[in-house]
Amino acid sequence: MQPRTLYPEDRVVLREVGLRDGLQLTSGFPDTAQKLDWMRAEHAAGVRHFELGSFLPAKRFPQFADLRELISAGAALPGAVSSALALNERGVADGLETGVDEIIFVLSATESHSRANTNRSRAEALEMLARIDAARRDRADPPVLTAGIAMAFGCSLEGAVEPAAVLRLAEDCARAGADVVAVADTVGFGGPRQVAQLADGLRAALGPAMPVAMHFHDTRGLGLANCAAALDHGIRVLDGSLGGLGGCPFAPGATGNAVFEDMAFLCETMGFDTGIDVAGLAGARAVLEAALPGETLHGALARAGLPRVLEPA
Amino acid sequence: MQPRTLYPEDRVVLREVGLRDGLQLTSGFPDTAQKLDWMRAEHAAGVRHFELGSFLPAKRFPQFADLRELISAGAALPGAVSSALALNERGVADGLETGVDEIIFVLSATESHSRANTNRSRAEALEMLARIDAARRDRADPPVLTAGIAMAFGCSLEGAVEPAAVLRLAEDCARAGADVVAVADTVGFGGPRQVAQLADGLRAALGPAMPVAMHFHDTRGLGLANCAAALDHGIRVLDGSLGGLGGCPFAPGATGNAVFEDMAFLCETMGFDTGIDVAGLAGARAVLEAALPGETLHGALARAGLPRVLEPA
Repeated sequence: MQPRTLYPEDRVVLREVGLRDGLQLTSGFPDTAQKLDWMRAEHAAGVRHFELGSFLPAKRFPQFADLRELISAGAALPGAVSSALALNERGVADGLETGVDEIIFVLSATESHSRANTNRSRAEALEMLARIDAARRDRADPPVLTAGIAMAFGCSLEGAVEPAAVLRLAEDCARAGADVVAVADTVGFGGPRQVAQLADGLRAALGPAMPVAMHFHDTRGLGLANCAAALDHGIRVLDGSLGGLGGCPFAPGATGNAVFEDMAFLCETMGFDTGIDVAGLAGARAVLEAALPGETLHGALARAGLPRVLEPA
Repeated sequence: MQPRTLYPEDRVVLREVGLRDGLQLTSGFPDTAQKLDWMRAEHAAGVRHFELGSFLPAKRFPQFADLRELISAGAALPGAVSSALALNERGVADGLETGVDEIIFVLSATESHSRANTNRSRAEALEMLARIDAARRDRADPPVLTAGIAMAFGCSLEGAVEPAAVLRLAEDCARAGADVVAVADTVGFGGPRQVAQLADGLRAALGPAMPVAMHFHDTRGLGLANCAAALDHGIRVLDGSLGGLGGCPFAPGATGNAVFEDMAFLCETMGFDTGIDVAGLAGARAVLEAALPGETLHGALARAGLPRVLEPA
């Protein structure tokens, strides 16, 4: 699979990451049938990219126990693209068996967070990325390999993070074999000028062949402002979750991922065609509300309704 | 008073409009002592610009009955700037008696909304603006006169609004005597590219001597994305309300004004000095929570706390 097949340069791709990132802090999680309803409702609204889980031991991470089933179901939806996290060679081996379209390996922008989160230095994480790349090369049609850089806009442990350090790490990831680089504002410290600077820097450093994705959390209210800055500076792949499902492990009670349906509306106002029907996407919230009755969902469109300019005639 | 005295070109001014715009849809409203606590708490955090009410009959609009008292109290706060709405000659006469620093007259961007909201055509509204300008000229030190253009980014009645139409109306307002033009996304239809286009257009059309303010509602989640675009395109005066107090008369239950403390954080991330201490401003929410116990307040910083980069050492 070529990265530009998954992420064409000429359109904006919005990725639903709620089935993975959104389920890390919820008190409960949807069962497999509910997850499939969620995927199908969003697919019917035009969503094509789904991050479906992490290849982790099912005993410790029961919310991802049905990952293989979701990947199979995704393969049956026309045009759908599945991705999943793999954090080590075992995870990658599992991933290669499933035929998942994209494997995401996560590194940290800072040394402190890298060690605290994975007990690896950044250099060791890069070595693991290279081994993951080598492992997939056996396959006739290997999955796309994405390097996700956490804490790229600020770190819960180190505070401010220099864009230059993120650029160096992104270039190292490309050299280690990544096809795509994704940078994440894991804790919601970033602002739109920082986003613009990093977007310009990454596109210049990595070149036009490599898709760059950005992943914002709305922890401090700037999720959509950061998405807008990313779009203005040439980023064409953005992550979000329906109803902003998710949270922040460092800020209990905080808002989570950028709200997917509000993000689709943002793109609409900016003149980008995402292929997503905003009204249909907003309607998919009902599936999530039924599956997670105790969970607080976020989002402004859900409260206000569609603006008159977008209402069906 | 010269407009650039109130709104210097070289800094970002954030105006607290909660005491006016925020109290139009609340079920209750703070008493005078609570309003004064609110003003003083924000003033202590560095806020200087307060929109305090509308000159309207106290019987029909009891939430603004203490407007004169608030203007006097504001005059006693070092550096504080007071503004209030006046919708006709009677309101302006009342305003001139109080010594308010700035009088805001509101027009509509569309003919339908102008007639529905005030029973005036836009041409008649411009005539009223000219009469208000004439009335203040009697004074030795007249208040600044601001023309506020409602529905400037979309209209609840007409849908899409062309930026060119807003530009023409803004130029008409300048000719009629306005010192400042403020454009409002009254219903939250606008997106950041539209904001950028209108900001560039207004600054070019009105020239550097005339401050341009923008007023966003977060009705559809784009409040801060629109603020960021405005700042990126040279706008230096933005409105918000603590806790996003307020709402939208056309969308019951929707979020209201852009959240003031999150907006101050946005400016901080973008490198603008607003003179406001974000932590202090966030702390002022306690006053509002006590004064309006039944009201839903919004805002991400309040849930997540300050980012580590802004925490006191």
